[in-house]
Order: sequence, then structure tokens, then C-alpha cells
Amino acid sequence: MNGAELLIQAAVDADIEYCFANPGTTEMPLVAAMEGNKQFRPVLSLFEGVCTGAADGYGRVAGRPAMTLTHLGPGFANGMANLHNARRANSPIVNVVGDHASWHVNFDPPLASDIEGMARTVSKFVRTSRTADAIGNDFIDAVNAAWQPSGAIATLILPMDLQAKAVQQQPAQSVIRPPHRQFQSHRIEAVARMIKDGKRLVFIVGDNGLTETGLKAAGRLSQLDGVKLYAETFPRLSYRGGGLPDLDRLPYFPEKAIEVLNQYDVVVCAGVVEPISYFGYEGIPSRLAEASRLVTLAEVGDDVEKTLEALADSVSAPAFQQLTGPLPLPANEQALSPASVGQILSASLPDDCIVSVEGGTCGYPFFTASANAKKHRVMTNTGGAIGQGIPAGFGAALAEPGNTVICLQSDGSAQYTIQALWSIARSQLPVVILIAANHRYGILQNELRRYGIPELGPQSQALTELDNPKIDWLQLSQSYGVAAERVETNANLAVALERAIAAKEPRLIEMCL
Amino acid sequence: MNGAELLIQAAVDADIEYCFANPGTTEMPLVAAMEGNKQFRPVLSLFEGVCTGAADGYGRVAGRPAMTLTHLGPGFANGMANLHNARRANSPIVNVVGDHASWHVNFDPPLASDIEGMARTVSKFVRTSRTADAIGNDFIDAVNAAWQPSGAIATLILPMDLQAKAVQQQPAQSVIRPPHRQFQSHRIEAVARMIKDGKRLVFIVGDNGLTETGLKAAGRLSQLDGVKLYAETFPRLSYRGGGLPDLDRLPYFPEKAIEVLNQYDVVVCAGVVEPISYFGYEGIPSRLAEASRLVTLAEVGDDVEKTLEALADSVSAPAFQQLTGPLPLPANEQALSPASVGQILSASLPDDCIVSVEGGTCGYPFFTASANAKKHRVMTNTGGAIGQGIPAGFGAALAEPGNTVICLQSDGSAQYTIQALWSIARSQLPVVILIAANHRYGILQNELRRYGIPELGPQSQALTELDNPKIDWLQLSQSYGVAAERVETNANLAVALERAIAAKEPRLIEMCL
Repeated sequence: MNGAELLIQAAVDADIEYCFANPGTTEMPLVAAMEGNKQFRPVLSLFEGVCTGAADGYGRVAGRPAMTLTHLGPGFANGMANLHNARRANSPIVNVVGDHASWHVNFDPPLASDIEGMARTVSKFVRTSRTADAIGNDFIDAVNAAWQPSGAIATLILPMDLQAKAVQQQPAQSVIRPPHRQFQSHRIEAVARMIKDGKRLVFIVGDNGLTETGLKAAGRLSQLDGVKLYAETFPRLSYRGGGLPDLDRLPYFPEKAIEVLNQYDVVVCAGVVEPISYFGYEGIPSRLAEASRLVTLAEVGDDVEKTLEALADSVSAPAFQQLTGPLPLPANEQALSPASVGQILSASLPDDCIVSVEGGTCGYPFFTASANAKKHRVMTNTGGAIGQGIPAGFGAALAEPGNTVICLQSDGSAQYTIQALWSIARSQLPVVILIAANHRYGILQNELRRYGIPELGPQSQALTELDNPKIDWLQLSQSYGVAAERVETNANLAVALERAIAAKEPRLIEMCL
Repeated sequence: MNGAELLIQAAVDADIEYCFANPGTTEMPLVAAMEGNKQFRPVLSLFEGVCTGAADGYGRVAGRPAMTLTHLGPGFANGMANLHNARRANSPIVNVVGDHASWHVNFDPPLASDIEGMARTVSKFVRTSRTADAIGNDFIDAVNAAWQPSGAIATLILPMDLQAKAVQQQPAQSVIRPPHRQFQSHRIEAVARMIKDGKRLVFIVGDNGLTETGLKAAGRLSQLDGVKLYAETFPRLSYRGGGLPDLDRLPYFPEKAIEVLNQYDVVVCAGVVEPISYFGYEGIPSRLAEASRLVTLAEVGDDVEKTLEALADSVSAPAFQQLTGPLPLPANEQALSPASVGQILSASLPDDCIVSVEGGTCGYPFFTASANAKKHRVMTNTGGAIGQGIPAGFGAALAEPGNTVICLQSDGSAQYTIQALWSIARSQLPVVILIAANHRYGILQNELRRYGIPELGPQSQALTELDNPKIDWLQLSQSYGVAAERVETNANLAVALERAIAAKEPRLIEMCL
């Protein structure tokens, strides 16, 4: 057995099923070692951002880490943007990065670089294995670092010679399944007292507070006078529909969020960190609520759903009321709009599907329309590095093979990891990609206006318009092996979406907006 | 005037013409500031790796820095792989990265990350501006750090509030055009003495030793008994053809390079660092020649071409002999092969064009066939991070508008920055992209065999074959607005290439191999 074989065996023993991989020369012993393990599934991508984005989506849905395998510093660097998102999503990921042979690296060959320095910017755990015998324990330390109630990114760097070297020692340690989530009674009592005292409370709920159990408890609390609950603006994984309570997301722009929060005496954090403005705008504070009004009911990684349930019980909140209501549908023959896309998608969702949302154009309207849809889960872009939605959707599809995943995706951000289409085609999994094709960076045109440029000049247009040339999404999708169609009206989208979902294989729909 | 306007003015004053940009919210003041300066040309890409690769190619050909503009840590991270290549090419690049407002960043909003930490892994100069008034001088320091005889990567991080803030001070400093390259007589005398003493010398020539002047001097030296000259394996920019001497590149695999260098008493470095094996292979030394046999004639950044000329004069080397010879052509109706691609391309090159080569499949055969082609310049991938060839070709095309650039490109590596096709289509510049479509990572299959796996198992195949599905390069290219055709025979390639070059606009040819 060599170091590489030891690592793959340790991964299988730790129930790590998938390895999202883009290997190169320095990972060849690891590639060779995979041959012996049928339970271990390498998934090739054409670009590392697809690997790390898929690992993020997999981690959110499966609740356990996937492995990524990348090639030296530049290969890892290509995966960093989506690791940034995964870090903000608290997704568990174990990155393995091959490095030059330990006796070779200090000669500074062309592909040498400071891999540890790169890895530290996105990882909680970074280590370079120094002996072949240590690889097993190093890997288990990495898995344990990543697989926590609040997941983390762990990066293990493996010199090529150690991968290929014979090993004597089996790992002494083993993977500890994530410790139980914490449940803090004194915090519950403190918040219950405020409610009983008649204070006006607004909750911001995240993490596992957005599960079915968590949302039902949130629904009970919402019925109390003076109590309001919001979901965090960008949840990692949030249940919606199927009669569950409709928690609005806290508004994105800080002036609106501040206005909302200012209506309450106390801002209660339930599975979220302190609410902070996404960007800093002159004259608007970073903190969306003053520190003096903030109370933590549950931290990220705590047992948020049980905490909310216990709180609802302790204040004798009414029983959970199933949400019912109509699913509004737009006029059939009209041209598509962001609002109509949200409505049509909401009406089309199959039960228990997963929706990966990236981009504001259709993302917010979908959220507005989907409260009364069938039960589904929504993943959002937690870190703001664009190019996350399609890879994350692919990872989610691998976490629940056969279940439908829908990617509701802006065209500009889709381009950053467009190579994901190939991996999806290869998998033949039921992933339906809806491209909101408005051929511009809409968010930036808004931000320019917020900055005080009401009319865009030629340079600003050149940097925010994507219409010269317009990308042909049909040809692009088909070139990677994903069947595609283009729709312009509401009626056509409804039909195309039904057909795509029924096909149970990869499909892309270009929505002309 | 605000900080952003000060920076753009400083860039124009420093003769920085192009800004390869992928801006976001934190760069809006810079985008707005560009409106006022018609001499300053922002070039939008759909992915930051295109920006940095284009800046590399531009820097090699223009001999001066371009600017890049990226968005926070993740945007910069997406450009790091091609900055790694640019660093190894000693290309001058000035990166400007927007950051959160200085009063906002420490609240750790979702897009915050350690940008300086990332930047240090690929940059010689890293600085965050701390006041708006300092921006001008900070930028000039960055330009001066980048624009050296041996170019470097400089990264300046600009908090958004400082970009938008009114400034009083104009920069006190100004850009120093790169200091003269050095010319070291004592080194020339030492090497001349060895030649006169009848020692057997092998030269490895890089940097500006591969210009026309440098190559002519190299050709003179080659005629001496016991003297042999090689080009470095991956030159940043090398003249070829047009009667210039044919310098072989030092072989890539270390056992072959060592065999070559072992035939000589002395290994002379002329504009290159010590020759090191690309990867470390068990039982083969990292150093391709023992330190005791190494002599430095000129360092990277020195005046290598003049040094070679002076050496040739001092040993009374014969006059330069124009190279003449046939351009071999393959049989017309046969299927394409890497060798025939190299021959057909060599015969088709227009005078003084630029060829950007990425990938081994056709790269080496082209080099073998091109000695007697018309005069041209070749750029290669200096750092081994793949996805460099097409963006670098795009940057070269902007450095010499109207001149033909040909990208000879492997299919696997093309995928990493495939979004470059859109920027090329938008530019309408005469860039012809030849895709060597063998639908596999050929180099990795070779490396697996070198590692001792003669027959690839299913997992190794799944990680090195790209044929399920096969990418349709015609549709892919057309989707981004680049007209394309597919060829299978030598005759068809010759015709297609002639047509594409004559078109004087972007074209892609998929070569079925």
C-alpha cells in the first residue's frame, strides 16, 4: 500500500463517496489508487471552479463532505472562488491538492507556488503532509476539521513522492461523526422573557433553522403579537412551499433592511451571524442593527430548529398552521418577465425538488411567488462569488440521484463556470437549467445608478452590457451535450419546463428577457 | 477629482492603454472614472482568467504593462492561474482590485476575504491604498514595480470609499521607463575564454536572447566547434523562421534534457534561470546539470541579445548565415496528424504573425516544422497553468491591432478560459484559433504510463478521457460569435487556414485528431 492508496482507503472509510477532480501530473498516484476502490467515485470537470462548486452543493444537500482533487497552486486557485462561497455556506469540503515531490519543490520549478498561502485564504484547516505514513491521520484530521455542525473547508496538500511511497502505518485515528449540535436553554429563556414582557422582536433565521421542523416552529412564533421572523438574505439551504410558513428573506439593500429591523425593539439571531450590509454605501451604517438591540438565540452550528421549537413551546405559541393560498399564474401569451418566470417556475416545481438560485433578476421574483409551491429546497449564493449556481446544482443532483434539480440562473454569472454543463451532460442526471438571458450585468447597472450615474456612458456600457455579441445559449448548451430550447412567452416556458422536468435528464432553457 | 479619477489619469500618464476588466460593485467609481478618458480602453471579459491571460500576452508583445481590474478576493482568485503564468513569463502587469469600503471591511461582509494574502502568491508588489490622496503614488509605485527589464506582477488593492473620495494631491512621483538592461563584460570574457580553451559548451537561451538580434548572434556562435545553443523549453516570446537560426528547445522530459546537457563540459545560462526538471520523477535529479558545470552569461532581465552579440564578436564567430531549407508538406488527402498540423500551419504563416502555442499534442510538431516558415513570433505557456493560450493570443492581438495571431491550442486546456472566445468575437481582431481536438488529456495519459500504469483502468480513463460527451467545437465557437469550421484532412486544413487568415477577423478551426 502506498500513501495515495492509504488516503483513498481513509476516504472510503470516512464515507466520502465523491471526489470532484481535475488532476494533473502530481496527482497521478492518487488517480491510480482510485482504481482499486469501486465505492469511491471520481467526477471529472473541465475547470476546477466546477469541482468546488459541486462539492459545496453536495455538502449542503448530503450533509457530509465531498472531496476535491486539484493540481498544484494554479489548479487550486481556479477553485477558490467557489470555495469562498462554500466557506460562507459552512459547507464541509475536504480539498486534496497534489504538490511537487518534496525533494523537488524547493528548486522552484515552473509550476511551484505558495499553495498553503492560497489555501489559507479560504480554508479553516491547511496542512502539507510531511511523511507518507502521516497521510492517513492527516486526512482524517482534515475530515474532522471539515465535518462539524457548522461545516468548514479543509485543505490537505500532498507531495507527489509521498503519494507514491510505501506506507507501514494505518491511521490511528478515525473520523468522528459531527458532534451533536448545541441547544442553549438560558438563551431560550432570555428570549422567551422578552416576548412575555411584550417587547417587539424580529428574528433572522438561518442554518438548520430553515428546515421543515425549524420553519414550523418559526410559523408558530410568527403568530405572536409583535413577533416577526425573516430568513437570512442568502440561505445555504432553505425549505419552502408544501404548506410551510412563508418567511421573507431580509432585504438585500441595507437601507431597506435597516428600515425593517428598526420597527422592532430586539433583533434575534437564530443560526446567523450579526446582520451586516452586503456592501458599504456612504452614509449607511455597516451594522443593520445597533449592537445594543442584538440578541443571539442560537449560533451557526447550534441546533437551531430544536431551539426555535423549544422557544415556541415555552411561550405557548399557537399550533402550526399549514399555509394555503393560490399559486398566481401570468397571462399565457405575454412575453416573459422576471415576475412571470418566478410564477411559472413555482407552479411547475415537482414535489421535494431542489432549486439552485443564482442572480437577482429572477431570484427575488421566484422567492416572492413560491410560498405556495410544492415542497422544495432552495440553495442560494452565500458568498457572492459568481459562477456558483450550476456547479452547486450539479453537486446537489449527485447527493440525491434521480431527484430533480432546477438551476435558476442569471446569464452573466453562469459564464464563470459554464464548463459545468459538460459534467452535467456526462452524468445524465435530471438537472434543468433556466438561463435568465437579459444579456447584461443588471446588478452593476443598478449599482452604477446607486453610485450616482443615472445615464451610462459608452465605457460603463461596454463594461456592463453583454449584447455584443449575444451569446447563443442553445448552441452553447448543445456543444456541451445538454439539449436546449429557447422560449420567449409565458406559455412556451410552462410547456418547455414541463417537458424538461419530465425528461429526467439534463436540459437547458434559454429564457429571453 | 476623486481617487478613482486620479488613478485612471495616472494610468493614462504612464502610457497604460488597456484595462482588462471584470468589475463589480466595489469598482463602480473606477468604471465611472473611465468615462472621462478616451485614451483609456477597458476590455470586458466574461471571466477573470481571460483578463489576466490577455494582460500577459499583451505585456509580452507590447513590452509594457496592461492593467487588470477585478472584483474583490474571488474575482482576483479567478485570475490567479494566468497571473502565475505571467509571473513565470516575467510579464509586466498592474492589477487593480477593488475592495470593500475601508470602514466596512472589518465587519466581515459575505464577500470579504484576505485579498493581500491571495495577491502575494502571484505578485512581487502588493499594497492596499490607505488614503485617497495616496492612490496616485501607490499606483505609480505599482507600475514601477511591474515595468522592469524583467517584468513583474504588481497588485494594488483599492477600498471603494477611497476611490470615491475627493483628492487634493497629484502624484509626486512619475513612472520611470524601465531602466536599461545590464551588459556584463566580465561574464562575456569568462565564457569567451572557455570557448578559446576548446571546452565544449551548451547554451540555454531565453528572455530577449530569442529576438532577431539575439538569434543571429546565437546562429554565429552555433557555427563554432563544440558549441551548441538551445532555446529554453517554454519561451515567453521567441522569434522563429524568416531565415533566422533554428534553435531547438531544450527537451521537456528531464532524462532527455540531462542526456543532451551531459554531452558538454559547461552549461551556459543566457537569459534563463538554472535548468530544473518540470516535475520531479523518482530516480531522476531535479537539476538538469550539476551546479559545478553551470555558468551564467546573462541573467533574466539583462541585455541578452547584446551579450550574445558581444560574445560572438569576441570569439570571432563567423558571420550569420541565413537559414534556408524546404518547408515539408504532408500528403493532401490523408487524415490530420499532429505532424501534418505542424507542417501545414508552418507553410501557412503570414509574415511577422504571432503564434500562441498551448499544449503538447501539436505544439512540439509545429516547432519541429516551423524553422523555415516566414518570420513569426511564438509565445508558449511559461508557468504550466492551463487556459493560457487563447487569452494570451487575444492580448497579443490588441498589442498589434491588425496583425494576425494564431492560437495553436489543445482542446483540454482551451476549456479553462473558453470565455475568451466572446472577447475575441467582440474585438473583431484577426485571431485564428486552431483547436487540436483529440478529446482527451493526452499528457496525463502519458504521465500515468510514466508512473507505471501501462493500461488505464475505468477510473483513470474517466479522469483523462473527454469523449463522453465530445464537445462540439463548432457550436461552442459560434455560440460566442466566432465563425468556425471543422476539418479532418490535410487538404481541408490548408484551405480552411488560408480562408481564416484572409478573413482578417476571428475564426476557429476544429482539427479532428
